[in-house]
Amino acid sequence: MSMDLMIKKIIDMNSPVVAGLDPKLDYVPEFLQKECFDEFGKNALGASQALLKFNMALIDELCEVVPAVKVQAAYYEMYGIEGMSALYKTVSYAKERGMYVILDGKRGDIGSTAEAYSSGWLGKTTIAGADYSMSEADCLTVNPYLGSDGIIPFVNDCKKYDKGIFALVKTSNPSSGEIQDLKVGKNTVYEMMAALVDKWGADNIGAYGYSAVGAVVGATYPEQAKKLRAQMKHTYFLVPGYGAQGAGADDVAVSFDKEGLGAIVNSSRAIMCAYKKSGNEKDFAKAAKDEAVNMTKAINAAIGR
Amino acid sequence: MSMDLMIKKIIDMNSPVVAGLDPKLDYVPEFLQKECFDEFGKNALGASQALLKFNMALIDELCEVVPAVKVQAAYYEMYGIEGMSALYKTVSYAKERGMYVILDGKRGDIGSTAEAYSSGWLGKTTIAGADYSMSEADCLTVNPYLGSDGIIPFVNDCKKYDKGIFALVKTSNPSSGEIQDLKVGKNTVYEMMAALVDKWGADNIGAYGYSAVGAVVGATYPEQAKKLRAQMKHTYFLVPGYGAQGAGADDVAVSFDKEGLGAIVNSSRAIMCAYKKSGNEKDFAKAAKDEAVNMTKAINAAIGR
Repeated sequence: MSMDLMIKKIIDMNSPVVAGLDPKLDYVPEFLQKECFDEFGKNALGASQALLKFNMALIDELCEVVPAVKVQAAYYEMYGIEGMSALYKTVSYAKERGMYVILDGKRGDIGSTAEAYSSGWLGKTTIAGADYSMSEADCLTVNPYLGSDGIIPFVNDCKKYDKGIFALVKTSNPSSGEIQDLKVGKNTVYEMMAALVDKWGADNIGAYGYSAVGAVVGATYPEQAKKLRAQMKHTYFLVPGYGAQGAGADDVAVSFDKEGLGAIVNSSRAIMCAYKKSGNEKDFAKAAKDEAVNMTKAINAAIGR
Repeated sequence: MSMDLMIKKIIDMNSPVVAGLDPKLDYVPEFLQKECFDEFGKNALGASQALLKFNMALIDELCEVVPAVKVQAAYYEMYGIEGMSALYKTVSYAKERGMYVILDGKRGDIGSTAEAYSSGWLGKTTIAGADYSMSEADCLTVNPYLGSDGIIPFVNDCKKYDKGIFALVKTSNPSSGEIQDLKVGKNTVYEMMAALVDKWGADNIGAYGYSAVGAVVGATYPEQAKKLRAQMKHTYFLVPGYGAQGAGADDVAVSFDKEGLGAIVNSSRAIMCAYKKSGNEKDFAKAAKDEAVNMTKAINAAIGR
């Protein structure tokens, strides 16, 4: 079971950290940008090659200390078709190095269209009678504003192809409350969403007691996260908002269960740009690894592991 | 102003119809599939070439009778990088033939990530000091579950680059009510969303009284659409759900204003697959054109144009 695979990696490496690969071109060391612009041109191809090389070097180091990477689709789509090519290659390379790969696309649509998204990222696409995998990602983030029939196609592919999803429940951004915190009787919209997410995973629960349908729960709202952890016993949390967005180890601790499982915490900028603090561009990948190790230690200390 | 451009085309062609290009491979006539499989292989490239040729032939006919196409990203992403290439080429070709192009991606994320999406689809991407357009789309659909800071980057690019967005308010699918219809005091979640959407467009209103920030309002919920039309005076509606999803001309009529503006109605399957009724594969593009004309007539009759 896909979520079991992720949890086993978390336990084996003793790290509940997922490194976000959301590479703005500014994050890529200048020498690497220059190398790729010289070879491929000062254009989308050159930029995308720089992102890919940056990612591959990061993955080579990060695969030794963290179980997973989260690849944010937006930062590849912004470079057009060349960027998308770098995205697919980044996913493949992370898989090759043994990492669990979460594609952060926040996809979602009506049922038939959700099926198409799911075929593209989790399941398979049938062409002239044969089935093809288009992406090697283990897991996809989805936006469930459309309700069950927009999510069930992903849930079905989780079962059929042994994959996972994380559905948005309470997001980490400043204005997440505008819709998500609205009061619906005694509950909030995000608590109603949490109940749906819990239900979608109810019949696909793995060896650790967690289902294939996880939830995105921002670290920047620790009180809400604490309530959700109590509400959603079988739902793993993908926790953004640590580091650059302002949340610390204590803020994320509430998203874990008593065994120190239940959450995987993302950091993107702080890991990718760790080298900027030392000023040593060449050692960017080692700096990222050190930052990931420090983040792991800080969170493990906060959750008593 | 982008939405003005769309409205002017709607008036000039006397058609409030947007043709959805959501091409499942099954929709492509067999002779065209065979042609592309023979030339490019029975694989994602062959499939994507078939989609592209299908789209181009449809666009050649449709550009004479409808103002716009809506390109659904999911049906291209499901064919991986080759599919994405077909998507970009479809957008370019529709622009070349003078059509208004809505990219239906339902993108949405936290602010910094929304900026990246917006650069990729509406704005520009800066590479080594120069700005590049990655997509020629006029307009993008967005999912606003994350609230204002996830949408403002798109709104800003609408102003800066003269583009439009349609934000999900009340979607056409059967379970859209699970979250969207929840009661928040006297209102529903979708009405609260409508108020936000209205606000996002308030300072960018064009010559026809409509803003650059539209709303997705499903034809399958005519009562809710009627209320929203009254609530959102300056918001153009993108209306899915006509035809294959079950709504008819009377159901969409409530989304129009008294001048017969205010809504653009999508149909995908009924237009793309119109040739299946006649059984004449070779004339698939003409059949699509006829269907689009009939749909235009039916809606114009219902709104008294």
